[in-house]
Amino acid sequence: MSQHLSPTIELAKDLISRRSVTPEDAGCQDLMIERLEAMGFKIERLQFEDVKNFWARRGDSGPVFCFAGHTDVVPPGPEERWEFPPFEATIDQGMLCGRGAADMKGGLAAFMTALERFIANHPDHDGSIALLITSDEEGPWVNGTTRVVDHLEARDEKITWCIVGEPSSTKHVGDAIKNGRRGSLGATLTVRGIQGHVAYPHLVKNPIHMAAPALAELAAEVWDEGNDFFPPTSFQISNINGGTGVTNIVPGHVDIMFNFRFSTEVTADELKTRVRDILNKHNLDWDIDWTLSGNPFLTAEGDLVDACQQAIKAITGQDTELSTSGGTSDGRFIAPTGAQVVELGPINATIHKVNERVSCQDLDTLSDLYENVMARLLVKG
Amino acid sequence: MSQHLSPTIELAKDLISRRSVTPEDAGCQDLMIERLEAMGFKIERLQFEDVKNFWARRGDSGPVFCFAGHTDVVPPGPEERWEFPPFEATIDQGMLCGRGAADMKGGLAAFMTALERFIANHPDHDGSIALLITSDEEGPWVNGTTRVVDHLEARDEKITWCIVGEPSSTKHVGDAIKNGRRGSLGATLTVRGIQGHVAYPHLVKNPIHMAAPALAELAAEVWDEGNDFFPPTSFQISNINGGTGVTNIVPGHVDIMFNFRFSTEVTADELKTRVRDILNKHNLDWDIDWTLSGNPFLTAEGDLVDACQQAIKAITGQDTELSTSGGTSDGRFIAPTGAQVVELGPINATIHKVNERVSCQDLDTLSDLYENVMARLLVKG
Repeated sequence: MSQHLSPTIELAKDLISRRSVTPEDAGCQDLMIERLEAMGFKIERLQFEDVKNFWARRGDSGPVFCFAGHTDVVPPGPEERWEFPPFEATIDQGMLCGRGAADMKGGLAAFMTALERFIANHPDHDGSIALLITSDEEGPWVNGTTRVVDHLEARDEKITWCIVGEPSSTKHVGDAIKNGRRGSLGATLTVRGIQGHVAYPHLVKNPIHMAAPALAELAAEVWDEGNDFFPPTSFQISNINGGTGVTNIVPGHVDIMFNFRFSTEVTADELKTRVRDILNKHNLDWDIDWTLSGNPFLTAEGDLVDACQQAIKAITGQDTELSTSGGTSDGRFIAPTGAQVVELGPINATIHKVNERVSCQDLDTLSDLYENVMARLLVKG
Repeated sequence: MSQHLSPTIELAKDLISRRSVTPEDAGCQDLMIERLEAMGFKIERLQFEDVKNFWARRGDSGPVFCFAGHTDVVPPGPEERWEFPPFEATIDQGMLCGRGAADMKGGLAAFMTALERFIANHPDHDGSIALLITSDEEGPWVNGTTRVVDHLEARDEKITWCIVGEPSSTKHVGDAIKNGRRGSLGATLTVRGIQGHVAYPHLVKNPIHMAAPALAELAAEVWDEGNDFFPPTSFQISNINGGTGVTNIVPGHVDIMFNFRFSTEVTADELKTRVRDILNKHNLDWDIDWTLSGNPFLTAEGDLVDACQQAIKAITGQDTELSTSGGTSDGRFIAPTGAQVVELGPINATIHKVNERVSCQDLDTLSDLYENVMARLLVKG
């Protein structure tokens, strides 16, 4: 290769070329572990079921600065729709192209090289540095970060500050960090009636008719007004299905799936109670199954948010935006332990799409940002 | 066979043993035609596409008394669930068992034997007698009665009185006749929104949320109060489907099927307009496909209703009930020509079910009823 590539880009290419579709790791963690051991990290491999995870720590004292991330990627979809093969890590016009380039092998590489520079310059840094790496972030979230956190909690090992390397930026690297995420609460609701022929309306109880005013009320309800950090809690029906397919039979039940994305102004239990009250007010015969994917979390302020904002200002000149928008992340499993948690990573425009890509320049900048944050937190002034 | 069977039962057995699942006729019409020709009927075979029909007429002058019926039957379903094979016409404890025994080969046989006796006694009856027979009543209703009626209308041939031999009785033969039927108007409604991820509620327009209050209003609407002959018009949603199956995507549209069964107090066009107004009031982006299966028809009074009521009183001692309940029948195609139309036939308890059956005694009574009606209408007092 005649191209000169930075250590960050070289490592990102190496990671992308390993086809680690969830829950596969495809050697990514081995590659990281080898380099971490060379830097003096103590490694704890934690495989749960088919999911590989590891916890790496350098230092025995607190505070503990942790970088959390995942080596797995979402499937590439139809490879013929990609401009460049998704696992070849092609560089084209300054962009590193491939599955995981932005989510989040680019971030992993940027942190690894930041770490190598930081430790070379500060071999006796304060506290400890740790990495919590999973290969299950894009999957069912069962045997990944949540299990590692349980493992640490069981021996009372605490994280003080945690950067999750998820792609948080929108237009310029560092223009936004996530200092929290909304909660996600899903439900499958069944409303029952009495099936029968449309020609005999006195013999049926139409569950669609009975459900409609309750659904209208749920859709119109103001669940909260949000707060300084969160938009108002939102309710969305994603699926509704009732009927036999034929035109002249009233079905016996209708099935409805819905989802709350909720702020810190309400709890999952409060939402369940309010839904129940609305359903009962409409005299429905109903069953519901709830799935709590995550409670909301928020790191409103503190050393970590300050360090990230100052580092971004110092390196890129930007005032970064604090945001809690978007989906869920593994931060929801780490925040409940008491850790300060922010997400800081590259631009998220292409994640989970064909032709996922990230600017090589941005990854180098991101590496500088991570190094700068560590310097602010782990080196006495 | 040592059993003595009446001519009506013999003929009904012969018809049932011919496996005439829609649109098959399986020789039923040939059997009828042979006997009608022997009685002096002029036969016009009218095959449209794969559907056999015929029009038979005895006499050239008016008034025209017509018997309308069908030789086709609904499928038997799983034959192993039948007590007796569905096409063997078994007699058990005075009941004739088999597919079509009640709907409506028993009625066809009863009318044929009534006719044979009536013509033997009144070879020079007034006016004309006709039969309108199809093999498409249980099917799509496209190439059956409606096509024959069009054919008659094209040459301005009119029916004065029409008995449809559908099973109209509930507990005792003749206890109810249908002197009309509600209309049936169906629709497939699509309400469109904007698809998106539940985590970004400001970017979606949820079509289920938008449709819910409109559906609640449609379900609560009083379309009319009915009248002396019809119950109030009813509206039933039979199917609703929206969603991709996954929990976190708001769908781009929701599909709703509904059906009106409507009285003579409203028209199909009025219902369409009122639905449209409700949908527009809720600012929906919608499309609708309407299917008018039949307008309501009513023979409120007249010679035919009188003759049927008097015949039933004379033969069975009962006061018969006039009813417009239940589904649709081919009467809806005949009534618009100006004919008086009633449905008079055996007990309908087992139609379209396994173990369909009818009392042999009832079929003999029904044959007497048909003969008595003809005598009242076609023999000068």
